[in-house]
Amino acid sequence: MTYCVGLKLNDGLVLLSDTRTNAGLDNIACYRKMYFFEEPGERVIVVMTAGSLSVTQTTLARLEEAIANEMADETTSIMQTPSMLQVATIIGDTLSRTRREILEQCRELSQQASASMIVAGQRKGGTMRMFLIYPEGNFIEATEDTPFLQIGEHKYGKPILDRVVTPATSLADAQKAVLLSMDSTLRSNLSVGMPLDLAVIERDACAVTSRRRILDGDPDFMRMSAAWSAALRESFVKVGI
Amino acid sequence: MTYCVGLKLNDGLVLLSDTRTNAGLDNIACYRKMYFFEEPGERVIVVMTAGSLSVTQTTLARLEEAIANEMADETTSIMQTPSMLQVATIIGDTLSRTRREILEQCRELSQQASASMIVAGQRKGGTMRMFLIYPEGNFIEATEDTPFLQIGEHKYGKPILDRVVTPATSLADAQKAVLLSMDSTLRSNLSVGMPLDLAVIERDACAVTSRRRILDGDPDFMRMSAAWSAALRESFVKVGI
Repeated sequence: MTYCVGLKLNDGLVLLSDTRTNAGLDNIACYRKMYFFEEPGERVIVVMTAGSLSVTQTTLARLEEAIANEMADETTSIMQTPSMLQVATIIGDTLSRTRREILEQCRELSQQASASMIVAGQRKGGTMRMFLIYPEGNFIEATEDTPFLQIGEHKYGKPILDRVVTPATSLADAQKAVLLSMDSTLRSNLSVGMPLDLAVIERDACAVTSRRRILDGDPDFMRMSAAWSAALRESFVKVGI
Repeated sequence: MTYCVGLKLNDGLVLLSDTRTNAGLDNIACYRKMYFFEEPGERVIVVMTAGSLSVTQTTLARLEEAIANEMADETTSIMQTPSMLQVATIIGDTLSRTRREILEQCRELSQQASASMIVAGQRKGGTMRMFLIYPEGNFIEATEDTPFLQIGEHKYGKPILDRVVTPATSLADAQKAVLLSMDSTLRSNLSVGMPLDLAVIERDACAVTSRRRILDGDPDFMRMSAAWSAALRESFVKVGI
C-alpha cells in the first residue's frame, strides 16, 4: 500500500509521500514514490505514484527515456510540452499503455497490476496545476473546491484535510496538514511506512523550493505527532455531548 | 454503506449505528441497523448489521422466528442459550446459511450479497461479551487490547478510537468517542447517514440502560460536532512542525 497526498494552494504546491512497498506482508521494502522533473525557473513537475511497482517504475523509466531521446519533441517529452495539461496527457497515456502490457503478462497467473499517480507542477508563463491520473490514463484536476488529491490509502488521513485545508492555507500550515494526515495513516495502516518525502513548490518559482526526506525517528516529526495526539486528547476532554 | 461501532468497556457496552441504506446512489433509504433482544435483568443482546439488507433482514427474521418457535430450546433460541458464545454461534450459523441461500439466488445476475454483524450483550451470571461476526459465520471477540469493533465504513472513524478508547474509558466518554467517530465518517462518506441509534448497556444490568435515536439536525449532536471541529482547528494551530 501507499499514501501520497498533494495540495494545490494559492501560494504553491505541497506534496508528501511514504516509501513502503510490499509484495505480501512478508516482503516489505522501501522505494521512493516521488519523482522530480525540473529545469529551474522554466519548468517543474513532480510525480507521485501508487500501485504495482513494476507498472510505476516502467512508466517513469519510459517518461525519462522519452525526455532523453534525441528525437524528443513537445508531443513526447514532458519537459517540452506547452502546457501542464499535455504533461498529464502524456503521463496518462504512458501509464495506461504500460499497465495494459504488464497486465497482459500477468494474466496467465490471474494477477493484478494497476497504478495511479499524482502529477503536479508549473511551467514558466503557465499556472500551477495538479492532476490525479487513473490507471486507465484519464485524469481529474484539483480545484478551488477540492484543493487536495490523494492516492493509495486515503481514508484515515482525509478528515484532517477536510477540516483544515483551503486554497488560502499557508505553505507552512499545509506542510503541517499533510504530515498530520500521514501520521493518522501511519498509525492505522502498517502497509504505509517511513521514511517520508516532503516537497514544496512555491507559486511561479518553477523550481522545487524545498525537498526533505523525513527518516524514521525524526525528532521533529515525532514531536509533532506526540503534540497532535496530546492536543486531540485534550480537545476530546473539552468537547461536551 | 454503513458504519456501526461497538465498545466493550469495564463499565459496560456502548453501541452506535447509522441508518442509511442504498441500492446504488440513486436509491437511498433509511433502515434501522440496531436490533434488541431483551429480558430485563436476565439477558440483553444487541445486534448491529452491515451489508445486503436482504441478508441482514432475513437473518434477523429467522432469529426472531427461532425465539418465538414453540419448540425453541437452548440450541436454537438466542434467548435460551447458556452463554453469549453460543449466541454468537447461532447468529453466525444463521447469517452464513442465509447469505449462502441469497447468494445462490443472486448468482444468475452475478450479483453479490454479503453481510457482517456486531453482537454484544450479557446474560445473568455471565460476563459481557462482544463479537464481530463475519459473512462466513466465524467471529472474533473484543478484548482488553482492542476494546472496540467496527463494521462497514470503518476507516474514517478509527483514528479517534485508536487515540482515546481504553477499557477504562467511562460510559460518558465512550458515547462521546463513538459519536465523534461517527461524525468523521458522516463527513467523509455520503453513504453513511443520519439518524443514528445509540445504546448503552451498563455492566451486570442485563438490560438496555439507555437507548436514543439521534435525528438529523439534533441540536446536541450538532453542537458537539461544531465544538469538535473548532477544537481540532485550534489544536492544529497550536501544534508546531
